[in-house]
Amino acid sequence: MKQKRIELPPDQRVTQWYNVMTDIPNGVQPPLDPETKQPVAPEKMARIFPMGLLEQEMSDKRWIDIPEEVLDIWQIWRPSPLIRANFLEEAIGTKAKIYYKYEGVSPSGSHKTNSAVAQAYYNKREGVKRLATETGAGQWGSALSFATHKFGLECKVYMVRVSFDQKPYRKVMMNTYGAQIVASPSPDTPTGRAILERDPNTPGSLGIAISEALEDTVSRNDTKYALGSVLNHVCHHQTVIGLEAKKQLAMVGDYPDVIIGCCGGGSNFAGLASPFVPDKLDGKKIRLIGVEPASCPSLTKGIYAYDFGDVSQRTPLLYMYTLGHDFIPPGIHAGGLRYHGMAPIISALQRENLMEAMALNQLECFEAGVLFAQTEGIIPAPESCHAVRAAIIEATRDKNEPKTILFNLSGHGLLDLSSYEKYFAGELSNYEYPAEAIAEATRHLPKI
Amino acid sequence: MKQKRIELPPDQRVTQWYNVMTDIPNGVQPPLDPETKQPVAPEKMARIFPMGLLEQEMSDKRWIDIPEEVLDIWQIWRPSPLIRANFLEEAIGTKAKIYYKYEGVSPSGSHKTNSAVAQAYYNKREGVKRLATETGAGQWGSALSFATHKFGLECKVYMVRVSFDQKPYRKVMMNTYGAQIVASPSPDTPTGRAILERDPNTPGSLGIAISEALEDTVSRNDTKYALGSVLNHVCHHQTVIGLEAKKQLAMVGDYPDVIIGCCGGGSNFAGLASPFVPDKLDGKKIRLIGVEPASCPSLTKGIYAYDFGDVSQRTPLLYMYTLGHDFIPPGIHAGGLRYHGMAPIISALQRENLMEAMALNQLECFEAGVLFAQTEGIIPAPESCHAVRAAIIEATRDKNEPKTILFNLSGHGLLDLSSYEKYFAGELSNYEYPAEAIAEATRHLPKI
Repeated sequence: MKQKRIELPPDQRVTQWYNVMTDIPNGVQPPLDPETKQPVAPEKMARIFPMGLLEQEMSDKRWIDIPEEVLDIWQIWRPSPLIRANFLEEAIGTKAKIYYKYEGVSPSGSHKTNSAVAQAYYNKREGVKRLATETGAGQWGSALSFATHKFGLECKVYMVRVSFDQKPYRKVMMNTYGAQIVASPSPDTPTGRAILERDPNTPGSLGIAISEALEDTVSRNDTKYALGSVLNHVCHHQTVIGLEAKKQLAMVGDYPDVIIGCCGGGSNFAGLASPFVPDKLDGKKIRLIGVEPASCPSLTKGIYAYDFGDVSQRTPLLYMYTLGHDFIPPGIHAGGLRYHGMAPIISALQRENLMEAMALNQLECFEAGVLFAQTEGIIPAPESCHAVRAAIIEATRDKNEPKTILFNLSGHGLLDLSSYEKYFAGELSNYEYPAEAIAEATRHLPKI
Repeated sequence: MKQKRIELPPDQRVTQWYNVMTDIPNGVQPPLDPETKQPVAPEKMARIFPMGLLEQEMSDKRWIDIPEEVLDIWQIWRPSPLIRANFLEEAIGTKAKIYYKYEGVSPSGSHKTNSAVAQAYYNKREGVKRLATETGAGQWGSALSFATHKFGLECKVYMVRVSFDQKPYRKVMMNTYGAQIVASPSPDTPTGRAILERDPNTPGSLGIAISEALEDTVSRNDTKYALGSVLNHVCHHQTVIGLEAKKQLAMVGDYPDVIIGCCGGGSNFAGLASPFVPDKLDGKKIRLIGVEPASCPSLTKGIYAYDFGDVSQRTPLLYMYTLGHDFIPPGIHAGGLRYHGMAPIISALQRENLMEAMALNQLECFEAGVLFAQTEGIIPAPESCHAVRAAIIEATRDKNEPKTILFNLSGHGLLDLSSYEKYFAGELSNYEYPAEAIAEATRHLPKI
């Protein structure tokens, strides 16, 4: 009987985050102030983020101590298991070994909880009473709702209207964790009111929800803002995933040849892959593969430029692969991957050829998700299905090559079963974004 | 920092089930043939169950080897974690130590998967091609759908119409695992057709669904029947829970004073508590507490008698605490606890004063579930909320008494969030079953 689960003993837990920025050749470009086109001053960001997180955002320390308070709450689900997907290997008939790190064991069901707890902690430490945020698919909103409650902070989540209506269970989960949720656009902010007046039936968008959360934040003096991906500090927090996986593989005397994660804003892939970058720089022959949806292909079809993080141009300019800040991706069911840009850290890894990107369509990803559920038991989140598919592609490219594949199963799909239902009913389709549409959306990027 | 999770190393995994029947003074009464009132012959049961399970049903062996094939699939989630509920302890201000065994880590989200895999294995071994079963809340149907697919068996689940409509995600989960689901009553069986003709809008009942699954079974020669609780072999399979918990507590030098599990058909409580019975017989001062809903109080208000396991009187007679086989419990949201009888093994433990029973109302249980979610992170299944509430009651009875409490968190509530939504909206109420109604329902029990 093959050992399937590799559990890291508590005394070997990871106690420092890894800052990959310090190792990327040519570094990661700083965010710019849209007015001055100069690096944005920390004081200007301090209105919306606590200093503890801003320090991490710009840190030149290679290792950052994880606070004891964060480690304590993380114990609920960390160290997360590393699992050998031997049943999947048998089903696809490969000699490759496939391991997956499973982040769906967290209370809210995905890797998002790792950073949510850290962000709530630093805000609490600096006397913040309340956090405002937006959520698309609902994973980040659920994670932050849990984390804020643990630290006695209030939380308000602006949830994109279409998800709010389609995923009622996500709302109940956030309510259970004591957070306040509104559908966005909402009557609670000037932007929300203006949009509702123009179009009372709008489905909303992540861009609108970000604007609302930012307006909420600056309209009060007890509130700061929290973001679940893209930014450097969020990527750092997620490195616990890759650091743990590395130790767990070492426990069974293994090391990955291929490392795979799905890419939306980028924190999930950064979390798994970053800790392997130094080995790659040292000459290890490993491949890091970020998987994005063909319908929102920032890494494979976007341009590398300074762009806004949101539709309403309220954020600093970030240097990243982008489809343009007013690019509206189609309504695929992996809502967590529908973002026009890519984390500056990931973008820099791509620029330096330290990683590869792969774009997949949603039908092939759901198909892989169902095979995974039937063999390994766990029903993956639609986002994670992208990583599953990519792992199968890599494992069957040459079935007789005995390589080792590691991927991150970033979340379970138990609150996404309505998407599976639509898949079974044949109601989902693929979307390849036409190159002209992307050219059009990126034509108006700010000139730096 | 207190150690929160206690993981059992794979090399210490449990490899034998414990048969508590061999230790219960005066034993467990055998099932009777309703026609002859004599112990039912195994050959008669062999039409619907495989011999491997019937042998366990009547076994006089204290320990039963767990097949390698079962252990292999169990590795997906077993050993399950034992978790110290220190955040809950702090919230309620107790000196008691509370540990919970967490069975929600299984693919289908509850302890049911333990027995489902074992049952699918024994059926497969004897050449069975297809299993038929019923499901109420959906936990058992999901577990068996997963398990049958792993062994290449077909599976048909008759799901009580009201749950089928209220819990669409459960149906999608079963479809994902490749099973066929119909709402019961269905047009697929004589009983289903007859009931639909009389009342096309009937909500269905577990009794009807059992009848349909049994009719399906005997109408074909490739099919056997599977039951998710009540029977002895199901209770044996679940003893892995208590056996693991005992080892895990020993790893941190602890031993429980109070052991708590929720009780529907009884397999969950039997699984946790049975392995502690020998210690209690040896004079250890421990309390075993089974928690049932006040609306379906078989242990606290039922009578101890031979009764049918189903409404339509198709099963053998089982000696058990019962509210009468035609007792229809109100529609509380802990669907898994809505059963008129109690496993013969649990009933015998109760008779011998080896356990206590506690009846709780649903509002206090949901309240406890929300507190648990907000402190420990995991949102418990409504059934498991009964164990959480009982643990809180025991831990706060005398807050300064440094006792150790162990309970089973039998499942997560991620597919029950609509019940939490109703609880938050104030739409749920308590039900105390009037004594006269129970007296009426038990008046017509068969005379033995």
